[in-house]
Amino acid sequence: MASSSSLTLSQAILSRSVSRHGSSSSTNSQLSPSSLSLPTFSGLKSTTATSFRRHILPSAAASGRHSAIRASAAVETLEKTDNALVEKSVNTIRFLAIDAVEKANSGHPGLPMGCAPMGHILYDEIMRYNPKNPYWFNRDRFVLSAGHGCMLQYALLHLAGYDAVREEDLKSFRQWGSKTPGHPENFETPGVEVTTGPLGQGIANAVGLALSEKHLAARFNKPDAEIVDHYTYCIVGDGCQMEGISQEAASLAGHWGLGKLIAFYDDNHISIDGDTEIAFTEDVAARYEALGWHVIWVKNGNTGYDEIRAAIKEAKAVTDKPTLIKVTTTIGFGSPNKSNSYSVHGSALGAKEVEATRQNLGWPYEPFHVPEEVKSHWSRHVPEGAALEAGWNSKFAEYEKKYPEEAADLKSIITGELPADWEKALPTYTPESPADATRNLSQQNLNALAKVLPGFLGGSADLASSNMTLMKMFGDFQKSTPEERNIRFGVREHGMGAICNGIALHSPGLIPYCATFFVFTDYMRAAIRISALAESRVIYVMTHDSIGLGEDGPTHQPIEHLASFRAMPNVLMLRPADGNETAGAYRVAILKSKTPSILALSRQKLPQLAGTSIEGTAKGGYTISDNSSGNKPDVILIGTGSELEIAVKAADELRKEGKAVRVVSFVSWELFDEQSAEYKESVLPAAVTARVSIEAGTTFGWAKIVGSKGKAIGIDRFGASAPAGKIYKEFGITAEAVIAAAKQVS
Amino acid sequence: MASSSSLTLSQAILSRSVSRHGSSSSTNSQLSPSSLSLPTFSGLKSTTATSFRRHILPSAAASGRHSAIRASAAVETLEKTDNALVEKSVNTIRFLAIDAVEKANSGHPGLPMGCAPMGHILYDEIMRYNPKNPYWFNRDRFVLSAGHGCMLQYALLHLAGYDAVREEDLKSFRQWGSKTPGHPENFETPGVEVTTGPLGQGIANAVGLALSEKHLAARFNKPDAEIVDHYTYCIVGDGCQMEGISQEAASLAGHWGLGKLIAFYDDNHISIDGDTEIAFTEDVAARYEALGWHVIWVKNGNTGYDEIRAAIKEAKAVTDKPTLIKVTTTIGFGSPNKSNSYSVHGSALGAKEVEATRQNLGWPYEPFHVPEEVKSHWSRHVPEGAALEAGWNSKFAEYEKKYPEEAADLKSIITGELPADWEKALPTYTPESPADATRNLSQQNLNALAKVLPGFLGGSADLASSNMTLMKMFGDFQKSTPEERNIRFGVREHGMGAICNGIALHSPGLIPYCATFFVFTDYMRAAIRISALAESRVIYVMTHDSIGLGEDGPTHQPIEHLASFRAMPNVLMLRPADGNETAGAYRVAILKSKTPSILALSRQKLPQLAGTSIEGTAKGGYTISDNSSGNKPDVILIGTGSELEIAVKAADELRKEGKAVRVVSFVSWELFDEQSAEYKESVLPAAVTARVSIEAGTTFGWAKIVGSKGKAIGIDRFGASAPAGKIYKEFGITAEAVIAAAKQVS
Repeated sequence: MASSSSLTLSQAILSRSVSRHGSSSSTNSQLSPSSLSLPTFSGLKSTTATSFRRHILPSAAASGRHSAIRASAAVETLEKTDNALVEKSVNTIRFLAIDAVEKANSGHPGLPMGCAPMGHILYDEIMRYNPKNPYWFNRDRFVLSAGHGCMLQYALLHLAGYDAVREEDLKSFRQWGSKTPGHPENFETPGVEVTTGPLGQGIANAVGLALSEKHLAARFNKPDAEIVDHYTYCIVGDGCQMEGISQEAASLAGHWGLGKLIAFYDDNHISIDGDTEIAFTEDVAARYEALGWHVIWVKNGNTGYDEIRAAIKEAKAVTDKPTLIKVTTTIGFGSPNKSNSYSVHGSALGAKEVEATRQNLGWPYEPFHVPEEVKSHWSRHVPEGAALEAGWNSKFAEYEKKYPEEAADLKSIITGELPADWEKALPTYTPESPADATRNLSQQNLNALAKVLPGFLGGSADLASSNMTLMKMFGDFQKSTPEERNIRFGVREHGMGAICNGIALHSPGLIPYCATFFVFTDYMRAAIRISALAESRVIYVMTHDSIGLGEDGPTHQPIEHLASFRAMPNVLMLRPADGNETAGAYRVAILKSKTPSILALSRQKLPQLAGTSIEGTAKGGYTISDNSSGNKPDVILIGTGSELEIAVKAADELRKEGKAVRVVSFVSWELFDEQSAEYKESVLPAAVTARVSIEAGTTFGWAKIVGSKGKAIGIDRFGASAPAGKIYKEFGITAEAVIAAAKQVS
Repeated sequence: MASSSSLTLSQAILSRSVSRHGSSSSTNSQLSPSSLSLPTFSGLKSTTATSFRRHILPSAAASGRHSAIRASAAVETLEKTDNALVEKSVNTIRFLAIDAVEKANSGHPGLPMGCAPMGHILYDEIMRYNPKNPYWFNRDRFVLSAGHGCMLQYALLHLAGYDAVREEDLKSFRQWGSKTPGHPENFETPGVEVTTGPLGQGIANAVGLALSEKHLAARFNKPDAEIVDHYTYCIVGDGCQMEGISQEAASLAGHWGLGKLIAFYDDNHISIDGDTEIAFTEDVAARYEALGWHVIWVKNGNTGYDEIRAAIKEAKAVTDKPTLIKVTTTIGFGSPNKSNSYSVHGSALGAKEVEATRQNLGWPYEPFHVPEEVKSHWSRHVPEGAALEAGWNSKFAEYEKKYPEEAADLKSIITGELPADWEKALPTYTPESPADATRNLSQQNLNALAKVLPGFLGGSADLASSNMTLMKMFGDFQKSTPEERNIRFGVREHGMGAICNGIALHSPGLIPYCATFFVFTDYMRAAIRISALAESRVIYVMTHDSIGLGEDGPTHQPIEHLASFRAMPNVLMLRPADGNETAGAYRVAILKSKTPSILALSRQKLPQLAGTSIEGTAKGGYTISDNSSGNKPDVILIGTGSELEIAVKAADELRKEGKAVRVVSFVSWELFDEQSAEYKESVLPAAVTARVSIEAGTTFGWAKIVGSKGKAIGIDRFGASAPAGKIYKEFGITAEAVIAAAKQVS
């Protein structure tokens, strides 16, 4: 936290957190990095202390002078810019992309060459950002949904002065360890907001970013203080438009009236397989109108700078609808022999065609050269960005004086610092507490957390009353009530997941949750994978987690899903068995700030078990009962979720017969993996090979836990439609089966 | 095959197959059930021999008299039907649904009550089918995309005389082992075409069914013989409409101009969370118009029978576009206190409300009662259906005389019987054959199979030139060239998978394949799961199967995908290492007629390895080289796909050092699991615990193969953007790592 002293806001936060925490020692432990790492202040995430101070301090001092800089002013100023200079800047972007792809001999030059004009106008004339603090809270957000065109964004970040993309970074495009990977990755490149590449994800992320802005603005802005106020821009390609996820997200954006979402549709008529005529002949503009968007068509996206500017102006004037600006461009614009064809989409132009393009566009420079006048023109963004942030900081300081409570909540959202004692809100249970479905226990936790976490919001894909996800103290986030926190996603699982990624990546303290039946994670798996990769803390509340849902049958009964997520990197898969474990699962999900968590929850009632705990849950696997001594049980029974109860029953019977039996709850494999070898040995001693696991799902993967001499009881077929108890019995997921297996292996 | 003698067509097929196979013994082995089971003639699939003969024979004899029965005639006849009788039939449907849900105390009465009028008109007045042969080839297809309303379909199948849904089946709705599970399942209930429930899948399946009809009609119909000629009907709900998959499929249906696809949109304004106003306010009709559909609005779907009839007539008149008939209905129509609310969607009405509904609709009957006049009215469908089929059989017999070649191909498609010697078309390779990427070798196989399998068709999600999936002898399946077999799906993975499910389930001999990058199975996982559950033989051609794709980076590099499909029931996950294994993978994929296969294929070149074979591939795991004796190697090295080469290199080095090393290719875990214990022991002897596996993916699951004393080399993190060789080295997926591990464990 060494460099925080240079930041007015973070200073305020630090000092305030001291006073709120009551003692400096607890504050320090809260703020220090730990195995369950807490997010640090966004401004400090990646920029080094040195560069941070160098660039921020002078302009912060000059904040009074620059504080009037606003988007409208920027447009006005820059409409007067010499078009020849604009052209030169646009060609700089094109050639930085061409040269980087050429050097890597890998990449996608077509999109950057076609979209350079809109890219230039956005980053040079329209957007408000601070290159030296990519995490400044009130920045405009930009998402390149057509992520393969990432050289467009890298070129723009480079020109704008972002530290992550220097000339050497452009030259190491797509190389090991570079800041310029093959698709935009927020976790690699400060200045990139989200991780795109898988098509359609980005526009849905953008909907999440715009939702966040609309929500926070409604909650925190005051008639005399518009403290939250930014746009979300996005470039989508034909591929994004074809993906169903973009339809889901766009339908919601229209429904919610996200007026500050402006998406550019790069309408270039080319996809990898050739002309879009072969597979994509719908009327996209008419579709978006049907979804409640404002639609504008820029017919000349190649050189029609004023058309693009006018479209953005018009889009901003429409405040109750998102806007789609369809920009007709030529893919690979400037390449005399390859433009307007798929051959320029995804591979280097080749030396000969690069030369021809240089000739064609009149570009006499060496590779990676940025002409002086272009460099000089863009250089103002560093001081202007610093001024924008400083101006906002002053505004926030005033806001804080007038509205201390709101400011405290907003700060928590901006920094990701969790309020003091938030964990105390989690409910606890005893074996005497009533039996209940973990989906209901989940709702108790959600409602408890909603009271203490200012950035907690979420909802379900039209299953709120089945997933039990309503926060009872809040209303619905809707067009006219955006300050509320229950989000109604409709039956749109994939869009829901990606929108939540956008929310989570908007601000470190926004903690979205979303819900559906566990089996329907199949609909949203691509978004969950992005959560994991992009380090986006989304909490996936997945109920009806096994054959225990009964009559809906095999289409609705997860079998392979637990295994499939245990196999996915950086996902916490949690399957709590009762109330304490459900609370423990939520605690971990909140604390793991760079990891999505999936909670698999039961439809059916489960007893509160003796021995379960919030602390044990944090370890992933732990002993809940044991009548052995010397760490040498005759047999270890291992269960998760709804089957832990069965393991307990089997243990009771076996103990009556004189066996020394340990029962282990294996609520999260990933958390257990993180424990020390000593701890693991204390739970699963290597010498005890008599092990039986039980879980109402595939046995795939369990061999690692039970070993080659143990036995895994599970379900390696699809489920069936019948009352749950009947299916459990027919499939042999019973205490009798555990007892028999235990006798067999011990 | 005992009952086949009663069927003219199947007789013809049997006798013809004898002559084509050259010897009766090869024919018998081809037709007899085996572990790689071949589909039998569709007409014989489920109806028992006895019932089949009883119902078919009389009307087959009367085929001359009935052959004129066609949909248009049917409509004409039935438009004159007494509306009071229609009303009674509609209420019968409603109460069968109410009573079944009530008895099960589980299910969804709301949709059947609202959709009973359109359901009645479809099954009683419009559709052509033969209740006693649910698999009659030229039947109209019906898909209930809103699958939770399955009691609608069960009631209709019951009234129409399908053997699968007798009164006792209705009474065992949602019970263990019944033919009436909680959602429609084609593998449980003859008469149900596809498996629905997961929303949006059904409409995409319907697009696949309609595509199949359009394709086969264009290929096989002659000016004097319209031998393929049926409609595909579908009911979709609000939930289906919100899902992105339905947008993807509908966009393609519009693009392809599927004029014989007629979808009813049950516009009831209610979803589980309440009024659709809370999450779904787009203009669905305008959206479908933008997608190139003809759209009709029936404003009174509750009692407007003539409106519904007129809409269908209009839809049929539009032959170049699919039609969406938006039918505004009242969910739970007839229930005085629960209709038009979410409470009637997904649970039993309860005794009191059932009684109130009986009062309200004037229904004096016992539960499950079908009034005599309704029974009598519907009874004509058995003879009429038999006559329809008999008429078509006569027509086909004439067709066969005039067009024997086309008839032979069509028969193969109808029956699923594979042409003689088709396997001989598969290419083989020697270690001297040039190194090549398995995606390229895959294309050689696809093109070889395209020549010999009449029902082989497919394509890619806009990656044909990367997935290498074009069949070079065919053009594109398009609106104006539907006889062609390369399908251009656009960037719509989820829709693609579900459309292929529809194609595969249209006729036993249609074998669809579809392709994208392996990592994007995440987009289509819900459709792949339906393939597995519905026993739909789709071949998933998944290229770029590891970090070996290089620079595109972690968003494009599969890690957990192999494990995630190995964990899914009834999916064959295949990862061939070279040419012979790729051919072997295709062979198995074709032969496994009730199982989808996923082929994971490399982007990068791989050598042709010594010891690989088509026969070995069929066993899933087999020894490709071994210098040990007595089944006692010092160490067993196990590899899959692109890493088998690495295992071979490591073995070479270890053998130089005097070690006895076995190299095992583990191309498919599922196939290995099917082998005998003796065979398994011959490949992986229990006594040899020194085992090392290598695979460029998660190690999750490998513990079962290598055992607790072995070592699994893999990647348990996300990938990276860099040239492939660099990533392999940095991640330790190298021969050196295998050698070190082998020394460690042996």
